[in-house]
Amino acid sequence: MKKTTVDFKTLVLPMPAVLLGVIVEDKINFMTASWCGVAGQAPPSVSIAVRKGRHSMKGIEEHGTFSINIASTSLAKEVDYCGIYSGNLEDKSKLFETFNGVLKTAPLISLCPVNMECRVLHTLDMGSHWLVVGEIVETHVSEACLTNGQPDPDKIDPIVWVPVARCYRKLGPVIGKGYSIGKK
Amino acid sequence: MKKTTVDFKTLVLPMPAVLLGVIVEDKINFMTASWCGVAGQAPPSVSIAVRKGRHSMKGIEEHGTFSINIASTSLAKEVDYCGIYSGNLEDKSKLFETFNGVLKTAPLISLCPVNMECRVLHTLDMGSHWLVVGEIVETHVSEACLTNGQPDPDKIDPIVWVPVARCYRKLGPVIGKGYSIGKK
Repeated sequence: MKKTTVDFKTLVLPMPAVLLGVIVEDKINFMTASWCGVAGQAPPSVSIAVRKGRHSMKGIEEHGTFSINIASTSLAKEVDYCGIYSGNLEDKSKLFETFNGVLKTAPLISLCPVNMECRVLHTLDMGSHWLVVGEIVETHVSEACLTNGQPDPDKIDPIVWVPVARCYRKLGPVIGKGYSIGKK
Repeated sequence: MKKTTVDFKTLVLPMPAVLLGVIVEDKINFMTASWCGVAGQAPPSVSIAVRKGRHSMKGIEEHGTFSINIASTSLAKEVDYCGIYSGNLEDKSKLFETFNGVLKTAPLISLCPVNMECRVLHTLDMGSHWLVVGEIVETHVSEACLTNGQPDPDKIDPIVWVPVARCYRKLGPVIGKGYSIGKK
């Protein structure tokens, strides 16, 4: 297979499109991020890369807490809005109805089917970005998105972010079961 | 929206299903991982969580290099196989045709449309896992997966991993353009 090198090096596919929630100077703010992944199981943890100078970093530094909210595709416009406009200039505090979990400084979006409240464990200097690594203190799921007590991906209907093409997509057809189709 | 807390806390959706490539004691090995994301832009970097004791960690410690390979859905069986069986017991060195880029100890899979060769920058102790953060030295894309010189997600056809349901899926329909549908 003939190969070529590309300038766009950070080509992980697919990515999520999460809403990072913080409180900056007593005001709730949300920022869209796709550079987010799980960092460990015990303790449960996530990492999220935040560009230096971003308004949301102030909240992370101020409280040492943040939330990760998984939006459904029906919220794609709001997700895109939160990725375009900075909380420095736009008041995003009234955009969503929120609730609190264990932490009181990690605003959780009621309309998002999945909400993780996180406490900062590490902040790595990655040059252009801070890689914020947090313990997931609690994960909340909308009851309407459960099937037999388990989170149901088709009910959650998460946004799939595709870099380069810069498109939001839906989950596609199932092609196989994990820990199964590759058995000898 | 009525909420409940869930035991499965690491509920980032969706996730990729990448093949982590290393060389352990002169032998190529591949391990499937879904806890992988971008860590920064300049320098371009990725993070990947690897359970402690995993065979692949030996290669990362030995050479300080690794590869991240994005497989197409046609390779789902091989991806699942590399997630089930440890390189400690199974010889996975003959599973794929490989090539080298700049680094000579980061084996790249020819059949995978996207290959990132990485050099370790940080290794964070996350309890159950190591969070390995690496600079992406070079990214290779199969020429057949380009459209107008840019990586084309539909030609790449990446595997979408859905946790809890533990299913491999395809990319679904486009629901909107980023940096566009949320404009005021």
